[in-house]
Amino acid sequence: MEQLQYQEGRTEISQLGKVALISRLTDGTACQGDDCAVLGDGKKKTLVSVQTLVEGVDFDMMYTPLRHLGYKAIAIAISNIAAMNGTPRQVLVSLAVSNRYSVEALDELYAGMHLCCRRYDVELVGGDTSSTRAGMVLSVTAIGEADEEKIACRKGAQHNDLICCSGDLGSAYAGLLVLEREKVTYQANPDFQPDLDGFDYVLERFLKPEPRTDIVAMLAERGVVPTAMTDVSEGLADSLLHLCRASGVGCEVYEERLPIDYQTSRVCSEMSNNMLPVSCALNGGKDYELLFTVSQQDYEKIKEMEGVHIIGYVTESGMPAVMVTPQNTTIELRAQGFQGTEE
Amino acid sequence: MEQLQYQEGRTEISQLGKVALISRLTDGTACQGDDCAVLGDGKKKTLVSVQTLVEGVDFDMMYTPLRHLGYKAIAIAISNIAAMNGTPRQVLVSLAVSNRYSVEALDELYAGMHLCCRRYDVELVGGDTSSTRAGMVLSVTAIGEADEEKIACRKGAQHNDLICCSGDLGSAYAGLLVLEREKVTYQANPDFQPDLDGFDYVLERFLKPEPRTDIVAMLAERGVVPTAMTDVSEGLADSLLHLCRASGVGCEVYEERLPIDYQTSRVCSEMSNNMLPVSCALNGGKDYELLFTVSQQDYEKIKEMEGVHIIGYVTESGMPAVMVTPQNTTIELRAQGFQGTEE
Repeated sequence: MEQLQYQEGRTEISQLGKVALISRLTDGTACQGDDCAVLGDGKKKTLVSVQTLVEGVDFDMMYTPLRHLGYKAIAIAISNIAAMNGTPRQVLVSLAVSNRYSVEALDELYAGMHLCCRRYDVELVGGDTSSTRAGMVLSVTAIGEADEEKIACRKGAQHNDLICCSGDLGSAYAGLLVLEREKVTYQANPDFQPDLDGFDYVLERFLKPEPRTDIVAMLAERGVVPTAMTDVSEGLADSLLHLCRASGVGCEVYEERLPIDYQTSRVCSEMSNNMLPVSCALNGGKDYELLFTVSQQDYEKIKEMEGVHIIGYVTESGMPAVMVTPQNTTIELRAQGFQGTEE
Repeated sequence: MEQLQYQEGRTEISQLGKVALISRLTDGTACQGDDCAVLGDGKKKTLVSVQTLVEGVDFDMMYTPLRHLGYKAIAIAISNIAAMNGTPRQVLVSLAVSNRYSVEALDELYAGMHLCCRRYDVELVGGDTSSTRAGMVLSVTAIGEADEEKIACRKGAQHNDLICCSGDLGSAYAGLLVLEREKVTYQANPDFQPDLDGFDYVLERFLKPEPRTDIVAMLAERGVVPTAMTDVSEGLADSLLHLCRASGVGCEVYEERLPIDYQTSRVCSEMSNNMLPVSCALNGGKDYELLFTVSQQDYEKIKEMEGVHIIGYVTESGMPAVMVTPQNTTIELRAQGFQGTEE
């Protein structure tokens, strides 16, 4: 029996990186590497994106209530539509599960999905179920729409544009740190009662993120079209690097401008490894906030926008993506890359 | 730490069945349980469907060349569009892999995807990659279009309509049987040279199925709009039962009318358990042929259509779905149900 061997010239996925991996896949097609595909001939475009969550990688059943998981799966798919400055309309769900899950468990999952769909006025129009040998895999396809001239891709940021982000950064990762700490304690002593008091905000940020369709609506109301946009799914550094690379520009963001919640700082200071809150913001990810650039002309409209922070500006082509510390030190931003797990 | 327990009132997925599981998910939404969701306000509708393949369940890396797997993943997603009498236009791919796969291996997978896209004039417009702890999961979202009045759902078959299917049935499953037999022999003796001679047709049917967009085009050319339609992904019995249930009708198909290739029959006769070819056709699945019903008025147009077989007719509401044997025995068709694997 022929079993294909790839021993010769083996390149590890981690060497190549996720973005390069996706562009190898979508090579020669429009909008490669963007949050959504853009379809349609008319002025009203259809946006489509697909997002997969894998048990044991993207979520841990130990501390993920199924209702929250369902909500999150829909929320992050919707976030891809918001990340193109579009309005989400429909979702389709492909669910692969093992027999470990009962129908009642899946009903909890579905309840969370339906809740998120209702909240964001999105219709769940289709689905597919299949079985796995172990664990759960959730793929959600989100469909949205946007006027052609309002679509914001990663490409488009211009020198001197303002860099903005919504909400706060690093809190989802702080929530994950709390859950992981409690998990370790629980595994050591199953009688242990978890201590989650005072961490409600960061926990909710991780377990039940909200797509920022409100920011998209606010920008539309004020007549601001971002020159470039993405969401912060793998940390601010990763999103900034994607945006700069696609736009062929550099950027300068200011550490003191990064919006970080006090609970995030508290979690960091309590962690034994004494992690810096700014590291959570730069590399934590899973915040699903929007990162976008706007022309300087839009400064007046943007500066009073609730929940929007101006964190820096776009520099010339050829310049690196950097963060400036309060001590005026310049740090070049690096991506974390594709974190494939060993089998 | 709260870990949700579902011990009380546990219902196994296998008790409920896949269709019921999907309709629980998409409850209250249009087109539930159909091959695609139908979107859009105008007369030109957008069809969207998502389909997931899981390593170890839907494919076995032991005998699945990655190029074939890539081709198949796209082909079966496209088949969902054909199954609604639509034309496929775009696909998006969500790939989750472990580090066991090298970049070169994924390039093989992509090459197969691109080949299938080219062959069916479909654009690969987007993608997403993520990591798994083990194995590969492939979700493909297919997008197509169809004029509103030409869309064929599972619902719509009328009493006395003719039941038609394309191609032949059971050959993909016969191919799987050959591969499984060779795998067992290989595992017992790794020096063993596989004997696949004379099985090329059934092997290709399993490893590299072709979506029947040609049948959709042929029906359009001849001005035939099926009253109901689906594809044969889980076997003829399963597809017929879905179609009858959705349409609120019964059906009668004739065993001697079922199109079965001689290689399928040969594989069946060589298997030690002496499986009947008709069982492959009814319950084997993965043929991705089209099953559809047409009005009797279209008989003249249908009967000379190459690759289309009239296998029976639609009976009244309240009647069962049955197969009539050459000995004139009537056998009620049963679904295989959701075959979740034990963890």
